[in-house]
Amino acid sequence: MPSKRSENSKRGWIIPIGGAEDKLERKRILSRFVDLSGGENARIVIIPTASRLTTTGDRYLKLFQELGVKDVQVADILTREDAEREDYEAMIENATGVFLTGGNQLRITTIIGGTKVAKAIRRGNADGLNVAGTSAGASVLSDHMIAFGKDGSSPRAGAVRLAPGLGLTNRFIIDQHFRQRDRLGRLVAALAFNPHPTGIGLDEDTAAFIGPDNTLEVEGSGALTLVDSSKTQFSSMAEAGVNDPICILGITVHILVHGATYNLHTRTASPGTLVGERTDD
Amino acid sequence: MPSKRSENSKRGWIIPIGGAEDKLERKRILSRFVDLSGGENARIVIIPTASRLTTTGDRYLKLFQELGVKDVQVADILTREDAEREDYEAMIENATGVFLTGGNQLRITTIIGGTKVAKAIRRGNADGLNVAGTSAGASVLSDHMIAFGKDGSSPRAGAVRLAPGLGLTNRFIIDQHFRQRDRLGRLVAALAFNPHPTGIGLDEDTAAFIGPDNTLEVEGSGALTLVDSSKTQFSSMAEAGVNDPICILGITVHILVHGATYNLHTRTASPGTLVGERTDD
Repeated sequence: MPSKRSENSKRGWIIPIGGAEDKLERKRILSRFVDLSGGENARIVIIPTASRLTTTGDRYLKLFQELGVKDVQVADILTREDAEREDYEAMIENATGVFLTGGNQLRITTIIGGTKVAKAIRRGNADGLNVAGTSAGASVLSDHMIAFGKDGSSPRAGAVRLAPGLGLTNRFIIDQHFRQRDRLGRLVAALAFNPHPTGIGLDEDTAAFIGPDNTLEVEGSGALTLVDSSKTQFSSMAEAGVNDPICILGITVHILVHGATYNLHTRTASPGTLVGERTDD
Repeated sequence: MPSKRSENSKRGWIIPIGGAEDKLERKRILSRFVDLSGGENARIVIIPTASRLTTTGDRYLKLFQELGVKDVQVADILTREDAEREDYEAMIENATGVFLTGGNQLRITTIIGGTKVAKAIRRGNADGLNVAGTSAGASVLSDHMIAFGKDGSSPRAGAVRLAPGLGLTNRFIIDQHFRQRDRLGRLVAALAFNPHPTGIGLDEDTAAFIGPDNTLEVEGSGALTLVDSSKTQFSSMAEAGVNDPICILGITVHILVHGATYNLHTRTASPGTLVGERTDD
C-alpha cells in the first residue's frame, strides 16, 4: 500500500504510458503530464535508470524544456549506491512530477527497489507528486509488475513472470506495447493467478491518466485494453501445467480510446468525451 | 437461417477448426469428427476448393482412410460449373460428414456460394450431416464470415471485411489461427458492427464441436477465445473513422480449453470435464 504523508493530501496522478509516445508532433501525453505538474512552473525529475543508453535522460530533458518547463533535472541513477544518495532523494521531494523512461523494468526494480529514491517516489505520490512512466517505466508503477513474459501466446502459466514493482498502487497490473507485441495472453495469465488487480494493456502512444480518485482517462492515439477479471467464474491456473493453455471464464474486456474513462474503484467504464463528438459525414 | 428437411430431424454437428490440426500423432480432432460421422462406416466427402494445391484433397483422403473410414471421396470442385454438378450434389446428399480444407475462404464462397453443392451442404446439415472445416474452411461455415482483415491490430473499423459465408448458422463468427496470427482486434471489430453473433477465435490444432443443441465443446491442444459482445454497453463503430481505434465497453471473454463448453443459446461457459481432472503434484 502506498505511504501517505497526511490524511488531507491528495494522491498525485499515476500515468503509465504504453511506450513510443509522440515526441515530435502534438505530444499530447507529455504535454498533459506537464500541465498536471504545474506547466512552465513544474519541477520535473527524469529517471532514465531503465535505459542502457546514456542519451535517454538528455533526450527527455530537451523534450520537457521544449514544452516550456524551466526546472527539469535528470537523476542519473546507475547503481543502488546512487539510489541511496540524499541529493537525489531531495530532488524528488522537491519535484511536482517524476518521469521514468523506458528500457528494462528489472533495471529499475533491481537498482531502485527499496532505496531512499524508491521511498521518496512512493511518499511523494501519496502526497501529490505526479509519477509518469513509459514502457518499462509504466510497468514498474504498480505493486505487481510483469517482469517479462511471452508475447503472442494464449494464456499459459509459463507465459508471464511477476515481480514486485515500485508499488504506487495495487489496483492494477500494467502491460505496454500491448497490441504491437500481442500481449493479451500474458496479461490474462497474470490476472489468472489472482483476479484482484485490473489489467491495463496500453498500446504505444497511449497513456492512462489515473487521478487521485482512481478514475483513469485515456490519452493518445491508440487503445487501452482494460481486462477486469473480478467476475471470473473459473480459472484452471491452480491445476494447469506450466505449458498448458489456461481455461478462464467470465473476463470482462473494455477497449478504451482517447477520452474514455474507467473507475478502478467501481469498475465501470464510460466512453467519456467520445459521446457528443459525433460527426455525420 | 439454415434450411431444414423435417421438424423431427436433428441438425448435424458444425465443427470449425483453427487450422494446422494434428495429422501425425493422436489426431484428436479428426478422429472425433470421424467418430461422430459413423466411425469406419462414415461416408465422408472432402471439399478442397479453398486450396490451390492439387494434393490437398488426397492428403485428407489418406488421413481419413488411416482413421479407418472406408467410404471417403474428394469432390474436386474448381469452378462454379463443378459446384452445380448433380453427381457432387448426390455425393453430399449421401454423406454423413463433409470436410472443407483450408486455403482462401473467398475461393469457397465465390466458387460454391449459391450453387447446388452449397444448398446440399446446408440442407444436409439441417438434417444431420456433420460439416467440419479447417482454417478457411472454418470461416465459411457461418452466415457472416471474416473475408479478410488486418492481423495484430487494435479493433478498427477498417481492420476487417465481412462477407456472406455458407450460412449453416448465424449464431457465431469464426476466426482461425487466432493467437498465432493475433486476430483478437479484427474479431472484436467484426462484432462491433452488430453484437448479435458470438465471436469464436480458434487457435491452431483447436476445434469447436458445436452440437445440435448449440452447445460447443472444445477439442485440441490450444485455446478457444470466446467473445460475447451481447452485453456491450457502448460501441463507437458508427462514429469512428476507418483507421481510428474503436471504443467498445463491456465485452465478455472466455478462454476455453479442451473439454470446456459454451452454450451459444444461453451464453454460458463451463469448464466441463476440466473440473475433476485435478492432480496435486
